Amino acid sequence: MKAMVVGAAGDIGSVVCDALGDRYDIITVGRSSGDLQTDLSCFASVCRLFAQVGNLEAVISAAGEVHFAPLEDQSYETMLFGLQKKVMGQINLVLAGLGKLADSGSFTLTSGVLSRDPVFQGVGAATANGAIDGFIVGAAIEMPRGIRLNAVSPGVLDVSFSRYGHLFPGHDPVPSERVGRAYVKSVEGRQTGQIFRVE
Amino acid sequence: MKAMVVGAAGDIGSVVCDALGDRYDIITVGRSSGDLQTDLSCFASVCRLFAQVGNLEAVISAAGEVHFAPLEDQSYETMLFGLQKKVMGQINLVLAGLGKLADSGSFTLTSGVLSRDPVFQGVGAATANGAIDGFIVGAAIEMPRGIRLNAVSPGVLDVSFSRYGHLFPGHDPVPSERVGRAYVKSVEGRQTGQIFRVE
Repeated sequence: MKAMVVGAAGDIGSVVCDALGDRYDIITVGRSSGDLQTDLSCFASVCRLFAQVGNLEAVISAAGEVHFAPLEDQSYETMLFGLQKKVMGQINLVLAGLGKLADSGSFTLTSGVLSRDPVFQGVGAATANGAIDGFIVGAAIEMPRGIRLNAVSPGVLDVSFSRYGHLFPGHDPVPSERVGRAYVKSVEGRQTGQIFRVE
Repeated sequence: MKAMVVGAAGDIGSVVCDALGDRYDIITVGRSSGDLQTDLSCFASVCRLFAQVGNLEAVISAAGEVHFAPLEDQSYETMLFGLQKKVMGQINLVLAGLGKLADSGSFTLTSGVLSRDPVFQGVGAATANGAIDGFIVGAAIEMPRGIRLNAVSPGVLDVSFSRYGHLFPGHDPVPSERVGRAYVKSVEGRQTGQIFRVE
């Protein structure tokens, strides 16, 4: 079985590859690394990506940027940035990949903790995460051919805490193994339309 | 006390004006109707709006479009449409209005039921609603000078059901009076960072 992991070089993407790698033939995708490259926020680029990979059982996205800044320093442009990069990037994967996924295949996107447990400077992430969670709920009921759609919404991973922990005072670092299992649940389970929180 | 209601000519906006009208001097705003006009999705236009109205105790938004269509007919453009119109439009109000609001004033935005109780063709709305709810959670904790920020997330109003009810099979029409009271709770109460569900 073949799975594509977008954002595979990141902390979460690496965890996903580790968790699925012994049961799936994994195609890694990144902006500038991996087996294949794509600009997720460009629909045409994502279509080219799917044309290259052929049929797939699972698409997992752990990609997407947002702008971290105090609310007073956020602008129309910085807020839209996260909606275009993290939200539309992941939605592009679903819109472009829907016809390429095997019957009963699955999409797994990534949102995050900040839309329920906010931190200073995190409004761009909170907005993008909420949009992804809403997309999952709205789109899962329209998936054809038994295709499933879920998100994993993790806190800051233990492996990321030395770099990002200072932005998350008092947040519990989340064990990477538990994050990996949430993606496994999405890909290998039968649930759909779910936001799997890991915190 | 002065309150600005954006989208005042719509079903929800009318309910808000009725619910607050005897205690607030209300400035109504619309795309083409009301005391003042604005293009919510244009930050410069929203800045001009605030320059015209002077200081305010409350800003209420019941505005924002999304594209209703089956998932298979949604595109990058139609999904981004709702993020620009409904999400960035309302975020523009907060970013542009923050310096214009009185101490302890309030912003009240509008999301909606479809990010938790989805319907066919509603994925654009579900995504936009989720983004707004995420924005509320993320931005409320950074509001200066005691300013509060909430959203009301209503089902389809009874007064709208003859036009939109066919899109919401089995949904309970929501009494307009209860929707009005949710906005009153946001404006005249003391809570912040809340999504007031009315269903």
